[in-house]
Amino acid sequence: MMKASPHQVAGHQALDGKLGPLIDAAGHFYKPLQGDERGLKEAAFYTAFSSNKSIPDHIRKFFPIFHGTQLLEASDGSGMHPHLVLQDLVSSRLSPSIMDIKVGSRTWPLQAPEDYIDKCLRKDRESTSLSLGFRISGLQVYGSKESGYWKPDKKTIKRFSAEDVRLVLRKFVSSNASADSGLDPDCCFASIVYGGSDGILAQLLELKAWFEEQTTYHFYSCSVLLIHDKELVLEGRSCGVEVKLIDFAHAVEGNGVIDHNFLGGLCSLIKFLSEVLEAPKCCTIKACPQVEEEP
Amino acid sequence: MMKASPHQVAGHQALDGKLGPLIDAAGHFYKPLQGDERGLKEAAFYTAFSSNKSIPDHIRKFFPIFHGTQLLEASDGSGMHPHLVLQDLVSSRLSPSIMDIKVGSRTWPLQAPEDYIDKCLRKDRESTSLSLGFRISGLQVYGSKESGYWKPDKKTIKRFSAEDVRLVLRKFVSSNASADSGLDPDCCFASIVYGGSDGILAQLLELKAWFEEQTTYHFYSCSVLLIHDKELVLEGRSCGVEVKLIDFAHAVEGNGVIDHNFLGGLCSLIKFLSEVLEAPKCCTIKACPQVEEEP
Repeated sequence: MMKASPHQVAGHQALDGKLGPLIDAAGHFYKPLQGDERGLKEAAFYTAFSSNKSIPDHIRKFFPIFHGTQLLEASDGSGMHPHLVLQDLVSSRLSPSIMDIKVGSRTWPLQAPEDYIDKCLRKDRESTSLSLGFRISGLQVYGSKESGYWKPDKKTIKRFSAEDVRLVLRKFVSSNASADSGLDPDCCFASIVYGGSDGILAQLLELKAWFEEQTTYHFYSCSVLLIHDKELVLEGRSCGVEVKLIDFAHAVEGNGVIDHNFLGGLCSLIKFLSEVLEAPKCCTIKACPQVEEEP
Repeated sequence: MMKASPHQVAGHQALDGKLGPLIDAAGHFYKPLQGDERGLKEAAFYTAFSSNKSIPDHIRKFFPIFHGTQLLEASDGSGMHPHLVLQDLVSSRLSPSIMDIKVGSRTWPLQAPEDYIDKCLRKDRESTSLSLGFRISGLQVYGSKESGYWKPDKKTIKRFSAEDVRLVLRKFVSSNASADSGLDPDCCFASIVYGGSDGILAQLLELKAWFEEQTTYHFYSCSVLLIHDKELVLEGRSCGVEVKLIDFAHAVEGNGVIDHNFLGGLCSLIKFLSEVLEAPKCCTIKACPQVEEEP
Protein backbone atom coordinates (compact mmCIF):
# COMPACT_ATOMS: atom_id res chain seq x y z
CA MET A 1 0.00 0.00 0.00
CA MET A 2 2.81 2.36 1.01
CA LYS A 3 5.89 2.60 -1.16
CA ALA A 4 8.92 4.79 -1.76
CA SER A 5 8.26 7.71 -4.12
CA PRO A 6 9.54 6.79 -7.59
CA HIS A 7 10.18 10.44 -8.45
CA GLN A 8 12.15 11.75 -5.53
CA VAL A 9 15.19 13.70 -6.74
CA ALA A 10 16.76 15.01 -3.51
CA GLY A 11 16.88 14.25 0.20
CA HIS A 12 16.84 10.93 2.03
CA GLN A 13 15.17 8.08 0.16
CA ALA A 14 13.23 5.12 1.53
CA LEU A 15 15.36 2.57 -0.28
CA ASP A 16 17.52 -0.31 0.94
CA GLY A 17 15.99 -0.26 4.39
CA LYS A 18 16.67 3.41 5.02
CA LEU A 19 14.34 5.97 6.57
CA GLY A 20 12.65 8.06 3.88
CA PRO A 21 9.33 9.33 2.60
CA LEU A 22 6.53 7.03 1.48
CA ILE A 23 3.56 7.56 -0.77
CA ASP A 24 0.16 5.92 -1.01
CA ALA A 25 -2.23 5.48 -3.93
CA ALA A 26 -4.51 8.25 -2.63
CA GLY A 27 -1.94 10.97 -3.41
CA HIS A 28 -0.35 11.41 0.00
CA PHE A 29 3.34 11.90 0.67
CA TYR A 30 4.47 10.75 4.12
CA LYS A 31 7.65 12.51 5.17
CA PRO A 32 9.28 11.15 8.34
CA LEU A 33 9.94 13.87 10.90
CA GLN A 34 13.69 14.35 11.17
CA GLY A 35 14.97 13.09 14.49
CA ASP A 36 16.39 16.32 15.84
CA GLU A 37 14.32 19.47 16.29
CA ARG A 38 14.16 19.98 12.50
CA GLY A 39 11.24 17.59 12.18
CA LEU A 40 9.28 19.38 14.89
CA LYS A 41 10.08 22.73 13.32
CA GLU A 42 8.85 21.62 9.91
CA ALA A 43 5.63 20.27 11.45
CA ALA A 44 5.19 23.55 13.34
CA PHE A 45 5.67 25.51 10.13
CA TYR A 46 3.09 23.51 8.18
CA THR A 47 0.62 23.76 11.07
CA ALA A 48 1.02 27.54 11.37
CA PHE A 49 1.08 28.15 7.63
CA SER A 50 -1.99 26.09 6.85
CA SER A 51 -4.03 28.01 9.42
CA ASN A 52 -2.63 31.43 8.46
CA LYS A 53 -5.59 33.20 6.89
CA SER A 54 -3.49 36.05 5.50
CA ILE A 55 -1.87 33.86 2.82
CA PRO A 56 -3.59 34.62 -0.48
CA ASP A 57 -4.81 31.64 -2.52
CA HIS A 58 -2.53 32.43 -5.47
CA ILE A 59 0.41 31.97 -3.05
CA ARG A 60 -0.96 29.04 -1.06
CA LYS A 61 -1.05 27.02 -4.28
CA PHE A 62 2.76 26.99 -4.28
CA PHE A 63 2.83 25.00 -1.02
CA PRO A 64 1.99 21.30 -0.68
CA ILE A 65 -1.35 20.70 1.03
CA PHE A 66 -0.79 19.63 4.65
CA HIS A 67 -2.93 16.88 6.19
CA GLY A 68 -1.39 16.83 9.67
CA THR A 69 1.04 14.33 11.17
CA GLN A 70 0.60 10.59 11.56
CA LEU A 71 2.42 7.73 13.29
CA LEU A 72 3.42 5.14 10.71
CA GLU A 73 5.63 2.10 10.40
CA ALA A 74 8.93 3.66 9.28
CA SER A 75 10.48 2.60 5.97
CA ASP A 76 13.64 1.43 7.76
CA GLY A 77 11.70 -1.09 9.83
CA SER A 78 12.59 0.70 13.08
CA GLY A 79 8.97 0.76 14.22
CA MET A 80 6.41 3.54 14.47
CA HIS A 81 7.67 7.00 13.52
CA PRO A 82 5.85 10.34 13.19
CA HIS A 83 5.38 11.50 9.57
CA LEU A 84 4.15 14.71 8.00
CA VAL A 85 1.21 13.88 5.74
CA LEU A 86 1.54 16.06 2.65
CA GLN A 87 0.14 16.28 -0.83
CA ASP A 88 2.11 14.04 -3.18
CA LEU A 89 3.24 16.47 -5.86
CA VAL A 90 4.41 14.15 -8.61
CA SER A 91 3.44 10.51 -8.32
CA SER A 92 0.31 10.88 -10.43
CA ARG A 93 2.44 12.18 -13.28
CA LEU A 94 3.19 10.05 -16.33
CA SER A 95 6.82 10.97 -16.75
CA PRO A 96 7.65 14.05 -14.74
CA SER A 97 10.80 16.05 -15.26
CA ILE A 98 11.69 17.51 -11.89
CA MET A 99 14.27 19.92 -10.60
CA ASP A 100 14.88 20.68 -6.91
CA ILE A 101 16.55 24.07 -6.48
CA LYS A 102 17.61 25.28 -3.04
CA VAL A 103 17.04 29.03 -3.09
CA GLY A 104 19.08 31.65 -1.24
CA SER A 105 22.81 32.25 -0.99
CA ARG A 106 22.62 31.55 2.76
CA THR A 107 21.03 28.27 3.85
CA TRP A 108 21.27 28.87 7.61
CA PRO A 109 19.10 30.98 9.88
CA LEU A 110 20.82 33.48 12.20
CA GLN A 111 19.66 31.56 15.27
CA ALA A 112 21.40 28.32 14.22
CA PRO A 113 24.17 26.75 16.37
CA GLU A 114 27.75 27.62 15.40
CA ASP A 115 28.73 24.17 14.15
CA TYR A 116 25.63 24.02 11.95
CA ILE A 117 26.43 27.48 10.54
CA ASP A 118 30.02 26.41 9.78
CA LYS A 119 28.81 23.31 7.94
CA CYS A 120 26.21 25.21 5.92
CA LEU A 121 28.54 28.08 5.08
CA ARG A 122 31.11 25.63 3.76
CA LYS A 123 28.49 23.93 1.58
CA ASP A 124 27.17 27.30 0.39
CA ARG A 125 30.68 28.33 -0.63
CA GLU A 126 31.54 25.01 -2.28
CA SER A 127 28.29 24.88 -4.24
CA THR A 128 26.79 27.63 -6.39
CA SER A 129 24.65 28.97 -3.52
CA LEU A 130 26.93 31.88 -2.70
CA SER A 131 27.84 32.72 -6.27
CA LEU A 132 24.45 32.28 -7.95
CA GLY A 133 22.07 32.66 -5.00
CA PHE A 134 20.76 29.11 -5.52
CA ARG A 135 21.96 25.57 -6.11
CA ILE A 136 20.48 22.58 -7.84
CA SER A 137 19.93 19.81 -5.24
CA GLY A 138 18.51 17.16 -7.50
CA LEU A 139 16.89 16.56 -10.86
CA GLN A 140 15.49 14.08 -13.29
CA VAL A 141 14.76 14.86 -16.92
CA TYR A 142 12.53 12.53 -18.91
CA GLY A 143 13.91 11.60 -22.30
CA SER A 144 11.68 8.99 -23.92
CA LYS A 145 10.18 5.55 -23.28
CA GLU A 146 13.43 4.09 -24.59
CA SER A 147 15.97 6.29 -22.84
CA GLY A 148 13.98 6.86 -19.64
CA TYR A 149 15.22 9.53 -17.26
CA TRP A 150 18.46 11.43 -17.12
CA LYS A 151 19.15 11.58 -13.39
CA PRO A 152 22.68 12.60 -12.47
CA ASP A 153 23.98 11.20 -9.17
CA LYS A 154 24.34 13.31 -6.03
CA LYS A 155 28.10 13.66 -6.33
CA THR A 156 27.84 15.04 -9.85
CA ILE A 157 25.14 17.48 -8.81
CA LYS A 158 27.16 18.66 -5.81
CA ARG A 159 29.99 19.63 -8.12
CA PHE A 160 27.82 21.69 -10.51
CA SER A 161 29.54 24.91 -11.53
CA ALA A 162 27.76 28.02 -12.80
CA GLU A 163 28.27 26.76 -16.34
CA ASP A 164 26.84 23.33 -15.43
CA VAL A 165 23.78 25.06 -13.98
CA ARG A 166 23.27 27.00 -17.19
CA LEU A 167 23.52 23.80 -19.20
CA VAL A 168 21.18 21.85 -16.92
CA LEU A 169 18.54 24.59 -17.05
CA ARG A 170 18.64 24.16 -20.84
CA LYS A 171 18.65 20.36 -20.73
CA PHE A 172 15.62 20.44 -18.44
CA VAL A 173 13.52 21.78 -21.33
CA SER A 174 15.16 19.90 -24.18
CA SER A 175 14.11 16.82 -26.13
CA ASN A 176 17.69 15.56 -26.51
CA ALA A 177 18.84 15.65 -22.88
CA SER A 178 19.49 11.96 -22.42
CA ALA A 179 22.25 10.95 -20.02
CA ASP A 180 25.46 12.81 -20.63
CA SER A 181 25.01 13.21 -24.35
CA GLY A 182 27.35 15.76 -25.81
CA LEU A 183 24.48 17.19 -27.85
CA ASP A 184 23.73 20.89 -27.56
CA PRO A 185 20.35 21.01 -25.79
CA ASP A 186 17.63 21.94 -28.30
CA CYS A 187 15.52 23.80 -25.69
CA CYS A 188 12.47 22.49 -27.51
CA PHE A 189 10.18 22.92 -24.55
CA ALA A 190 11.61 26.22 -23.27
CA SER A 191 8.77 28.47 -24.43
CA ILE A 192 6.08 26.10 -23.25
CA VAL A 193 7.67 25.23 -19.90
CA TYR A 194 9.53 28.39 -18.86
CA GLY A 195 7.48 30.86 -20.94
CA GLY A 196 3.81 31.65 -21.35
CA SER A 197 1.22 33.00 -18.94
CA ASP A 198 1.14 29.78 -16.86
CA GLY A 199 4.78 28.83 -17.33
CA ILE A 200 7.45 28.54 -14.69
CA LEU A 201 8.73 32.09 -15.13
CA ALA A 202 5.25 33.58 -14.73
CA GLN A 203 4.77 31.54 -11.57
CA LEU A 204 8.16 32.53 -10.16
CA LEU A 205 7.35 36.18 -10.82
CA GLU A 206 4.14 35.75 -8.85
CA LEU A 207 6.19 34.31 -5.98
CA LYS A 208 8.71 37.15 -6.29
CA ALA A 209 5.98 39.78 -5.91
CA TRP A 210 4.89 38.05 -2.70
CA PHE A 211 8.44 37.89 -1.35
CA GLU A 212 8.84 41.62 -1.96
CA GLU A 213 6.00 42.20 0.48
CA GLN A 214 5.69 39.35 2.96
CA THR A 215 7.57 39.75 6.25
CA THR A 216 6.11 36.79 8.15
CA TYR A 217 8.40 33.95 7.09
CA HIS A 218 12.08 33.54 6.22
CA PHE A 219 12.84 30.36 4.33
CA TYR A 220 16.35 28.99 4.76
CA SER A 221 17.38 25.85 2.94
CA CYS A 222 13.98 25.76 1.26
CA SER A 223 13.64 24.44 -2.28
CA VAL A 224 11.69 25.46 -5.32
CA LEU A 225 10.51 22.37 -7.16
CA LEU A 226 10.06 22.83 -10.91
CA ILE A 227 7.92 20.17 -12.57
CA HIS A 228 6.80 19.52 -16.10
CA ASP A 229 5.70 16.52 -18.07
CA LYS A 230 6.74 16.11 -21.68
CA GLU A 231 4.32 13.26 -22.32
CA LEU A 232 1.38 15.43 -21.27
CA VAL A 233 2.62 18.22 -23.52
CA LEU A 234 3.16 15.95 -26.51
CA GLU A 235 -0.21 14.28 -26.02
CA GLY A 236 -1.76 17.73 -26.00
CA ARG A 237 -3.40 17.08 -22.65
CA SER A 238 -1.84 19.81 -20.54
CA CYS A 239 1.29 21.80 -19.97
CA GLY A 240 1.75 20.06 -16.67
CA VAL A 241 3.99 22.86 -15.49
CA GLU A 242 4.14 23.40 -11.76
CA VAL A 243 6.20 25.34 -9.23
CA LYS A 244 6.14 24.25 -5.59
CA LEU A 245 8.02 25.22 -2.45
CA ILE A 246 9.20 22.37 -0.21
CA ASP A 247 11.42 21.73 2.84
CA PHE A 248 10.60 24.01 5.75
CA ALA A 249 12.75 22.58 8.53
CA HIS A 250 14.57 25.94 8.62
CA ALA A 251 11.67 28.32 8.10
CA VAL A 252 11.79 30.99 10.81
CA GLU A 253 9.76 34.06 11.74
CA GLY A 254 10.37 37.09 9.56
CA ASN A 255 9.86 39.65 12.34
CA GLY A 256 8.65 42.33 9.98
CA VAL A 257 11.59 42.03 7.56
CA ILE A 258 11.33 40.62 4.04
CA ASP A 259 13.23 37.43 3.23
CA HIS A 260 15.91 39.28 1.24
CA ASN A 261 18.02 36.12 1.11
CA PHE A 262 15.36 34.01 -0.61
CA LEU A 263 14.21 36.95 -2.74
CA GLY A 264 17.72 37.66 -4.05
CA GLY A 265 18.23 34.02 -5.00
CA LEU A 266 14.80 33.86 -6.61
CA CYS A 267 15.59 36.93 -8.74
CA SER A 268 18.85 35.30 -9.83
CA LEU A 269 17.03 32.08 -10.82
CA ILE A 270 14.45 34.13 -12.73
CA LYS A 271 17.27 35.83 -14.63
CA PHE A 272 18.85 32.47 -15.53
CA LEU A 273 15.54 31.08 -16.82
CA SER A 274 14.81 34.29 -18.77
CA GLU A 275 18.12 33.85 -20.54
CA VAL A 276 17.24 30.30 -21.63
CA LEU A 277 13.99 31.68 -22.97
CA GLU A 278 15.65 34.57 -24.80
CA ALA A 279 18.27 32.43 -26.52
CA PRO A 280 17.57 31.45 -30.13
CA LYS A 281 15.84 28.07 -30.37
CA CYS A 282 15.86 25.48 -33.10
CA CYS A 283 12.65 23.79 -32.06
CA THR A 284 9.09 25.00 -32.41
CA ILE A 285 6.82 23.60 -29.69
CA LYS A 286 5.49 26.93 -28.60
CA ALA A 287 1.82 26.86 -27.79
CA CYS A 288 0.50 25.20 -24.68
CA PRO A 289 -2.24 22.72 -25.67
CA GLN A 290 -5.58 23.76 -24.24
CA VAL A 291 -7.11 21.37 -21.76
CA GLU A 292 -10.51 22.96 -21.39
CA GLU A 293 -11.79 21.63 -24.70
CA GLU A 294 -13.78 18.73 -23.28
CA PRO A 295 -17.48 18.86 -24.12
CA MET B 1 42.07 75.67 -0.79
CA MET B 2 41.67 71.98 0.12
CA LYS B 3 39.83 71.07 3.28
CA ALA B 4 38.18 68.13 5.00
CA SER B 5 34.57 67.56 3.91
CA PRO B 6 32.23 69.06 6.54
CA HIS B 7 29.49 66.57 5.71
CA GLN B 8 31.22 63.21 5.77
CA VAL B 9 29.18 60.73 7.82
CA ALA B 10 31.15 57.47 7.45
CA GLY B 11 34.64 56.24 6.65
CA HIS B 12 38.03 57.72 7.51
CA GLN B 13 38.04 61.47 8.04
CA ALA B 14 40.78 63.99 7.33
CA LEU B 15 40.77 65.38 10.86
CA ASP B 16 43.44 65.60 13.53
CA GLY B 17 46.25 64.86 11.12
CA LYS B 18 44.70 61.66 9.79
CA LEU B 19 44.50 60.51 6.21
CA GLY B 20 41.07 61.23 4.75
CA PRO B 21 39.21 62.80 1.83
CA LEU B 22 39.54 66.46 0.93
CA ILE B 23 37.30 68.78 -1.02
CA ASP B 24 37.93 71.93 -3.01
CA ALA B 25 35.70 74.89 -3.83
CA ALA B 26 35.18 73.66 -7.41
CA GLY B 27 33.08 70.71 -6.26
CA HIS B 28 35.68 67.96 -6.25
CA PHE B 29 36.03 65.24 -3.65
CA TYR B 30 39.57 63.83 -3.32
CA LYS B 31 39.51 60.36 -1.82
CA PRO B 32 42.93 58.95 -0.91
CA LEU B 33 43.55 55.52 -2.44
CA GLN B 34 43.58 52.96 0.34
CA GLY B 35 47.10 51.61 0.88
CA ASP B 36 46.43 47.96 0.14
CA GLU B 37 44.94 46.75 -3.15
CA ARG B 38 41.54 48.19 -2.26
CA GLY B 39 42.55 51.64 -3.48
CA LEU B 40 43.74 50.28 -6.81
CA LYS B 41 40.57 48.22 -7.16
CA GLU B 42 38.35 51.22 -6.54
CA ALA B 43 40.31 53.28 -9.09
CA ALA B 44 40.02 50.39 -11.56
CA PHE B 45 36.27 50.21 -11.00
CA TYR B 46 35.74 53.94 -11.59
CA THR B 47 37.92 53.83 -14.69
CA ALA B 48 36.06 50.86 -16.18
CA PHE B 49 32.62 52.09 -15.16
CA SER B 50 33.06 55.60 -16.51
CA SER B 51 34.07 54.25 -19.92
CA ASN B 52 31.37 51.53 -19.99
CA LYS B 53 29.02 52.69 -22.73
CA SER B 54 26.33 50.17 -21.83
CA ILE B 55 25.39 51.98 -18.62
CA PRO B 56 22.18 53.91 -19.28
CA ASP B 57 22.13 57.59 -18.25
CA HIS B 58 19.32 57.09 -15.75
CA ILE B 59 21.63 54.68 -13.91
CA ARG B 60 24.88 56.57 -14.38
CA LYS B 61 23.36 59.49 -12.48
CA PHE B 62 23.46 57.38 -9.31
CA PHE B 63 27.27 57.22 -9.43
CA PRO B 64 29.62 60.10 -8.56
CA ILE B 65 31.28 61.61 -11.62
CA PHE B 66 34.89 60.39 -11.88
CA HIS B 67 37.65 62.79 -12.90
CA GLY B 68 40.58 60.40 -12.76
CA THR B 69 43.31 60.09 -10.12
CA GLN B 70 45.70 62.73 -8.91
CA LEU B 71 48.80 62.91 -6.68
CA LEU B 72 48.11 65.32 -3.83
CA GLU B 73 49.63 66.31 -0.52
CA ALA B 74 47.92 63.89 1.87
CA SER B 75 45.83 65.25 4.73
CA ASP B 76 48.02 63.49 7.28
CA GLY B 77 51.11 65.37 6.14
CA SER B 78 52.80 62.16 4.98
CA GLY B 79 53.63 63.63 1.58
CA MET B 80 52.22 63.04 -1.89
CA HIS B 81 49.53 60.37 -2.08
CA PRO B 82 47.33 59.23 -4.99
CA HIS B 83 43.69 60.33 -4.72
CA LEU B 84 40.54 59.53 -6.67
CA VAL B 85 39.07 62.77 -7.99
CA LEU B 86 35.30 62.48 -7.68
CA GLN B 87 32.28 64.71 -7.79
CA ASP B 88 31.63 66.21 -4.35
CA LEU B 89 28.08 65.11 -3.63
CA VAL B 90 27.12 67.31 -0.70
CA SER B 91 29.40 70.24 0.01
CA SER B 92 27.35 72.69 -2.04
CA ARG B 93 24.32 71.88 0.09
CA LEU B 94 23.02 74.34 2.68
CA SER B 95 22.23 71.84 5.42
CA PRO B 96 22.20 68.35 4.04
CA SER B 97 20.70 65.43 5.92
CA ILE B 98 22.70 62.38 4.87
CA MET B 99 22.47 58.68 5.52
CA ASP B 100 25.12 56.15 4.44
CA ILE B 101 23.61 52.66 4.15
CA LYS B 102 25.81 49.67 3.34
CA VAL B 103 23.65 47.42 1.19
CA GLY B 104 23.76 43.62 1.08
CA SER B 105 23.71 41.00 3.81
CA ARG B 106 27.20 39.89 2.74
CA THR B 107 29.91 42.56 2.54
CA TRP B 108 32.69 40.30 1.23
CA PRO B 109 33.34 39.00 -2.28
CA LEU B 110 33.89 35.27 -2.75
CA GLN B 111 37.47 35.87 -3.85
CA ALA B 112 38.46 37.62 -0.61
CA PRO B 113 41.19 36.18 1.68
CA GLU B 114 39.98 33.99 4.57
CA ASP B 115 40.92 36.41 7.36
CA TYR B 116 39.11 39.24 5.60
CA ILE B 117 36.00 37.05 5.16
CA ASP B 118 36.08 36.11 8.86
CA LYS B 119 36.27 39.77 9.87
CA CYS B 120 33.46 40.84 7.53
CA LEU B 121 31.21 37.91 8.43
CA ARG B 122 31.57 38.77 12.11
CA LYS B 123 30.66 42.42 11.43
CA ASP B 124 27.74 41.36 9.21
CA ARG B 125 26.40 39.13 11.99
CA GLU B 126 26.92 41.71 14.75
CA SER B 127 25.30 44.50 12.76
CA THR B 128 21.93 44.44 10.99
CA SER B 129 23.51 43.39 7.66
CA LEU B 130 22.60 39.72 7.96
CA SER B 131 19.19 40.25 9.52
CA LEU B 132 17.97 43.22 7.45
CA GLY B 133 20.15 42.96 4.34
CA PHE B 134 21.67 46.39 5.03
CA ARG B 135 23.21 48.43 7.82
CA ILE B 136 23.42 52.11 8.53
CA SER B 137 27.10 53.17 8.47
CA GLY B 138 26.68 56.82 9.23
CA LEU B 139 24.21 59.67 9.27
CA GLN B 140 23.56 63.28 10.04
CA VAL B 141 20.11 64.80 10.28
CA TYR B 142 19.71 68.55 10.15
CA GLY B 143 17.46 69.97 12.86
CA SER B 144 17.52 73.75 12.70
CA LYS B 145 19.95 76.68 12.80
CA GLU B 146 19.77 76.50 16.58
CA SER B 147 20.03 72.75 17.11
CA GLY B 148 22.31 72.00 14.17
CA TYR B 149 22.82 68.37 13.20
CA TRP B 150 21.95 65.16 14.96
CA LYS B 151 24.97 63.00 14.23
CA PRO B 152 25.24 59.89 16.39
CA ASP B 153 28.79 58.65 16.99
CA LYS B 154 30.21 55.57 15.32
CA LYS B 155 29.86 53.35 18.38
CA THR B 156 26.17 54.14 18.69
CA ILE B 157 25.58 53.48 14.99
CA LYS B 158 27.46 50.17 15.15
CA ARG B 159 25.06 48.96 17.81
CA PHE B 160 21.88 49.84 15.88
CA SER B 161 19.27 47.09 16.20
CA ALA B 162 16.44 46.50 13.71
CA GLU B 163 14.22 48.72 15.89
CA ASP B 164 16.86 51.47 15.96
CA VAL B 165 17.04 51.31 12.16
CA ARG B 166 13.26 51.72 11.91
CA LEU B 167 13.41 54.71 14.25
CA VAL B 168 16.33 56.34 12.44
CA LEU B 169 14.64 55.99 9.05
CA ARG B 170 11.74 57.94 10.57
CA LYS B 171 13.97 60.52 12.28
CA PHE B 172 15.73 61.11 8.98
CA VAL B 173 12.55 62.69 7.59
CA SER B 174 11.28 64.36 10.74
CA SER B 175 11.35 67.97 11.91
CA ASN B 176 11.85 67.00 15.56
CA ALA B 177 14.82 64.65 15.26
CA SER B 178 17.31 66.62 17.33
CA ALA B 179 19.89 64.66 19.29
CA ASP B 180 18.44 61.86 21.31
CA SER B 181 15.13 63.52 22.01
CA GLY B 182 12.55 61.11 23.26
CA LEU B 183 10.00 62.67 20.89
CA ASP B 184 8.15 60.41 18.51
CA PRO B 185 9.46 61.41 15.07
CA ASP B 186 6.80 63.42 13.23
CA CYS B 187 7.85 62.14 9.77
CA CYS B 188 6.99 65.59 8.45
CA PHE B 189 9.15 65.22 5.36
CA ALA B 190 8.39 61.56 4.63
CA SER B 191 6.12 62.11 1.66
CA ILE B 192 8.34 64.73 0.11
CA VAL B 193 11.66 62.92 0.71
CA TYR B 194 10.78 59.22 0.47
CA GLY B 195 7.63 59.63 -1.65
CA GLY B 196 6.77 61.30 -4.92
CA SER B 197 7.94 60.72 -8.45
CA ASP B 198 11.46 62.05 -7.75
CA GLY B 199 11.69 60.88 -4.16
CA ILE B 200 14.10 58.39 -2.68
CA LEU B 201 11.77 55.41 -3.11
CA ALA B 202 11.19 56.14 -6.78
CA GLN B 203 14.95 56.40 -7.29
CA LEU B 204 15.64 53.17 -5.40
CA LEU B 205 13.01 51.40 -7.51
CA GLU B 206 14.82 52.60 -10.62
CA LEU B 207 18.04 51.14 -9.22
CA LYS B 208 16.25 47.91 -8.33
CA ALA B 209 15.03 47.46 -11.90
CA TRP B 210 18.62 47.80 -13.08
CA PHE B 211 19.91 45.30 -10.51
CA GLU B 212 17.32 42.77 -11.68
CA GLU B 213 18.96 42.87 -15.10
CA GLN B 214 22.60 43.89 -14.87
CA THR B 215 25.13 41.06 -14.59
CA THR B 216 28.34 43.07 -15.08
CA TYR B 217 29.10 44.23 -11.54
CA HIS B 218 28.70 42.84 -8.04
CA PHE B 219 28.94 45.48 -5.34
CA TYR B 220 30.14 44.27 -1.95
CA SER B 221 30.44 46.69 0.92
CA CYS B 222 29.02 49.42 -1.29
CA SER B 223 26.82 52.13 0.18
CA VAL B 224 23.69 53.89 -0.89
CA LEU B 225 23.86 57.54 0.14
CA LEU B 226 20.49 59.18 0.80
CA ILE B 227 20.56 62.96 0.79
CA HIS B 228 17.97 65.64 1.33
CA ASP B 229 18.01 69.24 2.41
CA LYS B 230 15.27 70.58 4.64
CA GLU B 231 16.30 74.19 4.14
CA LEU B 232 15.87 73.85 0.38
CA VAL B 233 12.48 72.26 0.88
CA LEU B 234 11.29 74.90 3.34
CA GLU B 235 12.55 77.72 1.13
CA GLY B 236 10.60 76.16 -1.71
CA ARG B 237 13.68 76.00 -3.89
CA SER B 238 13.93 72.28 -4.53
CA CYS B 239 13.37 68.90 -3.01
CA GLY B 240 17.08 68.36 -2.92
CA VAL B 241 16.53 64.63 -2.73
CA GLU B 242 19.33 62.48 -4.08
CA VAL B 243 20.38 58.84 -4.09
CA LYS B 244 24.00 57.96 -4.83
CA LEU B 245 26.09 54.82 -4.75
CA ILE B 246 29.57 55.11 -3.23
CA ASP B 247 32.52 52.94 -2.12
CA PHE B 248 33.62 50.50 -4.78
CA ALA B 249 36.78 49.01 -3.28
CA HIS B 250 35.01 45.62 -3.33
CA ALA B 251 33.19 45.85 -6.64
CA VAL B 252 33.93 42.70 -8.65
CA GLU B 253 32.92 41.29 -12.02
CA GLY B 254 29.43 39.83 -12.16
CA ASN B 255 30.30 37.09 -14.68
CA GLY B 256 26.79 37.00 -16.10
CA VAL B 257 25.04 36.64 -12.74
CA ILE B 258 22.90 39.35 -11.15
CA ASP B 259 24.07 40.87 -7.86
CA HIS B 260 21.45 38.98 -5.82
CA ASN B 261 23.17 40.04 -2.60
CA PHE B 262 22.87 43.78 -3.28
CA LEU B 263 19.43 43.36 -4.85
CA GLY B 264 18.04 41.49 -1.84
CA GLY B 265 19.30 44.16 0.56
CA LEU B 266 17.97 46.92 -1.67
CA CYS B 267 14.51 45.32 -1.71
CA SER B 268 14.60 45.13 2.08
CA LEU B 269 15.54 48.81 2.36
CA ILE B 270 12.75 49.69 -0.07
CA LYS B 271 10.29 47.81 2.12
CA PHE B 272 11.47 49.66 5.25
CA LEU B 273 11.11 53.05 3.56
CA SER B 274 7.68 52.13 2.15
CA GLU B 275 6.54 51.39 5.68
CA VAL B 276 7.61 54.83 6.91
CA LEU B 277 5.65 56.32 4.04
CA GLU B 278 2.55 54.21 4.70
CA ALA B 279 2.41 55.00 8.41
CA PRO B 280 -0.05 57.71 9.48
CA LYS B 281 1.61 61.10 9.63
CA CYS B 282 0.81 64.15 11.72
CA CYS B 283 2.54 66.62 9.50
CA THR B 284 1.49 67.99 6.13
CA ILE B 285 4.45 68.98 3.98
CA LYS B 286 3.45 66.89 1.01
CA ALA B 287 4.10 68.63 -2.28
CA CYS B 288 7.58 69.12 -3.65
CA PRO B 289 8.04 72.80 -4.47
CA GLN B 290 8.55 73.31 -8.18
CA VAL B 291 11.90 74.68 -9.22
CA GLU B 292 11.21 75.21 -12.91
CA GLU B 293 9.14 78.36 -12.35
CA GLU B 294 11.87 80.80 -13.27
CA PRO B 295 10.96 83.05 -16.21
